[in-house]
Amino acid sequence: MTYRVPVADIAFTLDHIAGFSRLIDGGLFEDLDMDTARAILEEAARFANEELAPINRAGDTQGARLVDGKVVLPEGFTEAYAKWVEAGWGSFTAPKEHGGQGLPVSLGMAVAEMWHGANMAFGLNPLLTQAGVHALIAHGAHALQTQYLPKLISGEWTGSMQLTEPQAGSDLRSLKTRATPVGDGTYKLTGTKIFITYGEHPMTDNIIHLVLARLPDAPFGTRGISLFVVPKFIPNADGSLGERNDVVAAKLEHKLGIHGSPTCVMNFGDRGGATGWLVGEPNGGLKAMFTMMNEARLGVGIQGVGIGERAFQQALDYARDRRQGAAEGSAADASVAIIEHPDVARMLLNMKSKTSAARAIAYTTSVAIDISHRAADASERKRAANEAALLTPIAKAVSTDFGVETASEGIQVHGGMGFIEETGAAQHYRDARIAPIYEGTNGIQAIDLVTRKLPLAGGETFRDFLAGLKETAREVASSNDDGLGHTGECLWESITALEETGGWLTRQLAENRAAALAGATPFQRLFGFAAGGALLAKGALAATRGGESHGRNAEAVVLEARHFAESLMGETSGLKHAVTHAHETVARGGAVLGER
Amino acid sequence: MTYRVPVADIAFTLDHIAGFSRLIDGGLFEDLDMDTARAILEEAARFANEELAPINRAGDTQGARLVDGKVVLPEGFTEAYAKWVEAGWGSFTAPKEHGGQGLPVSLGMAVAEMWHGANMAFGLNPLLTQAGVHALIAHGAHALQTQYLPKLISGEWTGSMQLTEPQAGSDLRSLKTRATPVGDGTYKLTGTKIFITYGEHPMTDNIIHLVLARLPDAPFGTRGISLFVVPKFIPNADGSLGERNDVVAAKLEHKLGIHGSPTCVMNFGDRGGATGWLVGEPNGGLKAMFTMMNEARLGVGIQGVGIGERAFQQALDYARDRRQGAAEGSAADASVAIIEHPDVARMLLNMKSKTSAARAIAYTTSVAIDISHRAADASERKRAANEAALLTPIAKAVSTDFGVETASEGIQVHGGMGFIEETGAAQHYRDARIAPIYEGTNGIQAIDLVTRKLPLAGGETFRDFLAGLKETAREVASSNDDGLGHTGECLWESITALEETGGWLTRQLAENRAAALAGATPFQRLFGFAAGGALLAKGALAATRGGESHGRNAEAVVLEARHFAESLMGETSGLKHAVTHAHETVARGGAVLGER
Repeated sequence: MTYRVPVADIAFTLDHIAGFSRLIDGGLFEDLDMDTARAILEEAARFANEELAPINRAGDTQGARLVDGKVVLPEGFTEAYAKWVEAGWGSFTAPKEHGGQGLPVSLGMAVAEMWHGANMAFGLNPLLTQAGVHALIAHGAHALQTQYLPKLISGEWTGSMQLTEPQAGSDLRSLKTRATPVGDGTYKLTGTKIFITYGEHPMTDNIIHLVLARLPDAPFGTRGISLFVVPKFIPNADGSLGERNDVVAAKLEHKLGIHGSPTCVMNFGDRGGATGWLVGEPNGGLKAMFTMMNEARLGVGIQGVGIGERAFQQALDYARDRRQGAAEGSAADASVAIIEHPDVARMLLNMKSKTSAARAIAYTTSVAIDISHRAADASERKRAANEAALLTPIAKAVSTDFGVETASEGIQVHGGMGFIEETGAAQHYRDARIAPIYEGTNGIQAIDLVTRKLPLAGGETFRDFLAGLKETAREVASSNDDGLGHTGECLWESITALEETGGWLTRQLAENRAAALAGATPFQRLFGFAAGGALLAKGALAATRGGESHGRNAEAVVLEARHFAESLMGETSGLKHAVTHAHETVARGGAVLGER
Repeated sequence: MTYRVPVADIAFTLDHIAGFSRLIDGGLFEDLDMDTARAILEEAARFANEELAPINRAGDTQGARLVDGKVVLPEGFTEAYAKWVEAGWGSFTAPKEHGGQGLPVSLGMAVAEMWHGANMAFGLNPLLTQAGVHALIAHGAHALQTQYLPKLISGEWTGSMQLTEPQAGSDLRSLKTRATPVGDGTYKLTGTKIFITYGEHPMTDNIIHLVLARLPDAPFGTRGISLFVVPKFIPNADGSLGERNDVVAAKLEHKLGIHGSPTCVMNFGDRGGATGWLVGEPNGGLKAMFTMMNEARLGVGIQGVGIGERAFQQALDYARDRRQGAAEGSAADASVAIIEHPDVARMLLNMKSKTSAARAIAYTTSVAIDISHRAADASERKRAANEAALLTPIAKAVSTDFGVETASEGIQVHGGMGFIEETGAAQHYRDARIAPIYEGTNGIQAIDLVTRKLPLAGGETFRDFLAGLKETAREVASSNDDGLGHTGECLWESITALEETGGWLTRQLAENRAAALAGATPFQRLFGFAAGGALLAKGALAATRGGESHGRNAEAVVLEARHFAESLMGETSGLKHAVTHAHETVARGGAVLGER
């Protein structure tokens, strides 16, 4: 099965759901127009289809390996990366002043969906490089910027994000890696980092590590963490590569999925200390880390979309070709493609509509980021930044949960063949499973959503977003479009549940914080269903009004929105109950279950 | 992490939820009493803990391999099997007249949960042998029974179930394997079977294959399928092994999980034809197959329970040991076991209560089977048989879906460590994924439930079962037990949804069958939530009334029931909507999605 980028879905979602036209019409990206954007999408799609998708399977079966201290990548990965850099995809969204092309983040995320759908293990590398670029732009001294940014942006070098240590995962307070000032402006780093994606690889001459560590006098906790640049090779003044730095990959992890991506244990200071440079203020590492992390979180959400799409295509392809059983009411000896069986069609509709909903949420978040960067009006920028902040945990968590669920349902569509590795469906099920975990587990996202994002701007950000969802629900109700069936009522019920639980949680934050924390994950999922359902309905309204189709079938757009609303979104009733009642059992749950 | 059989949970569920005491009190199994049953459970638990759990990991990492035409099993599998036979576990539930111990199916299923929880790849082998035993007892000629049953029952030989062919999976109409009568009462079989679990292995001297094939003059479709016994070695009259039969394992599949279990492609007739004997009537194979399949379906449901339990224990263990973050409201530099974080406790409660609900459903089904075999009164036997028939698809499908969901949530509890294969959580996620597929996909179970089981006895079986659920809901309501919180209301809402959708589907069967088929899977899940919730509540009532605890903590029993009702069962509201509306989108879904 060959993955094909769903360019029509991507362009339609950008244009009619995510609000990409606001960027174009507002001239936020100079003379960028929809035709150009569309041509870029087509070109990226060609690259993903022809260069990345074909090596996805080898990535899984061969995996990355550590041989004599060197990482060996699966066949084709290094060559594909060189072509990717050559084609300029690395510099896509980076600012022009640092050598980038200055294109919208939203277009960058659309293109990233293609890399991840085609080859999630490959796509991770640029995701992390870009996170490093953001940190350097926001917090790096001028000298560091000029030294590293051009090559990181072009992709000539890659970046890694080094946060986790064995005792410090979700909880960064207990980081132990130490950075000792040498006195010449540099620091010597010693310690061990784990789960470092592309911490070592042969794709590029140099790798620029962004590393969290503690200064000698640092206070306990997250206020004592600083961020450092630690290059694999220390660049000379003329830009050539100098001394090999004292940081090595000691081991690669043996993982459930994304085998093509090397996940390294990194040792700093086996030979006395790795040379690093401080990024930003001493003890200001957490802030710099969140700069790296926020877009990376959205990027991981996009992985959920990409892997969901790929699993859907794989299952659809199988269901169209595999013949089993007679259709209801047909001659007993007839046999039909299994897609004609209602239960199989239902599974495929689940997969497709969940993937579309996740895409709609993620792209909407990315357009908000663009507006927050570019709008002329400061208050508009601020509002958009808040909207992006509110939606980022949803985009990360709900998209990645949907990705796992979709990959699992994709196996089910295949029946027994789904369990056989050669079929390919199993790889998606394995690959998808990491996305709800890294860049902050989905549980951490939920806590972020409830404790920091709901209260943003005194709750106004949440209320504004709700108002938008309600407006869509009203438009659906007044459209009287038979094709949308009960979508309007279903939307209204879910949005009301979102509003009520949001209010309840906000009160609990003051009164009973543990209750808010117990309900955070069900709330996050409820939010995803309500937002996803409304955004799909927005697309359906646009499709029925006959706007530019971008090649999408209007009936399919409407059907997805309706199926999501009628068959999936009803879960919000149960989630509403879980949000407000989970604390009653959870309060004693740990103690009762935890007894040995 | 070592799996420990949850003997207390198992005994409590049998005694207070599944109605095992009806078997004891009614004297259906002579002088079997609860103390003896409990002693048997303890003994089986010892075997599972000490012999099977320790080799589970080697089963995964080494896997079964085909070397020079011979299957090589992972370390310890063959030795463990010999001990298992020696201890008499093979003959556990088989009838005394054939050399079995004649113990209850329900006790057999409880013990099977232990084999699967300890080592799912190992447990599969007896599951299939027992299926073959059932077919031979129900349909085999006396000569076949005396020749094969004693050794299959003791476990000296194993059995395989050979149904699937490349073109015939869920749809057995298109089977091609041929059986040509030789004239001496034997048949020559030629053809290829796929996905044959333990079709070849070195655990025993002989393997007895039960094979579906077509006679030369067989009509098209399932009415033209016959069942044959095809031994690997043809036994001589004196019982010694004679000629090697013309059936070989041509290949082992490379699977997502259950690596320790050899899944074979079997070739019949490479040297002219494999010798087989007809079981039952010519063209009567389908009936014989369902005899094999029905208890095997329940057995697969039990696998879902076993793997869910194992995943839960693994996650619980990790959550008690892993320290990250401060508890809400505690000093900033404190750090606690992650089980103290509400979101982690919530995930563990989800896992535990889903597993307990699945266990309650599966055991209740198995007690109904025992009553259907043993009750003195014919109408009671019939009623129980119908109840077992109604519940079997729920026990198979909902337990296995819960198993997959629980294994996935188990990875999430581990964070990044869950994605590392050495941790062990990933194996459960991979192993669990087969159970919703084999022995009839869960979609096939749903179709069986709606089209054949709902209408049983004119709908009386379903109404009787509903009445039992309602009675529990009323008892909960009248118990006024604060510990159960809103359980009563939640139960009532779900049971009402079950009743209404069951009625709706019954009407659709006559009026719009495709609509019933589109809603079948959501209905099956709804049924599982309503039944599981009510059965857990039944256990909670027993716990609060202070019956024999079997070592279970009464607070934990109540908490599980309450958590299931308040945080999970609410999904039934959405499922109700999906049952009755899915057909509206599904009717066009296949056509719209299927366009190339």
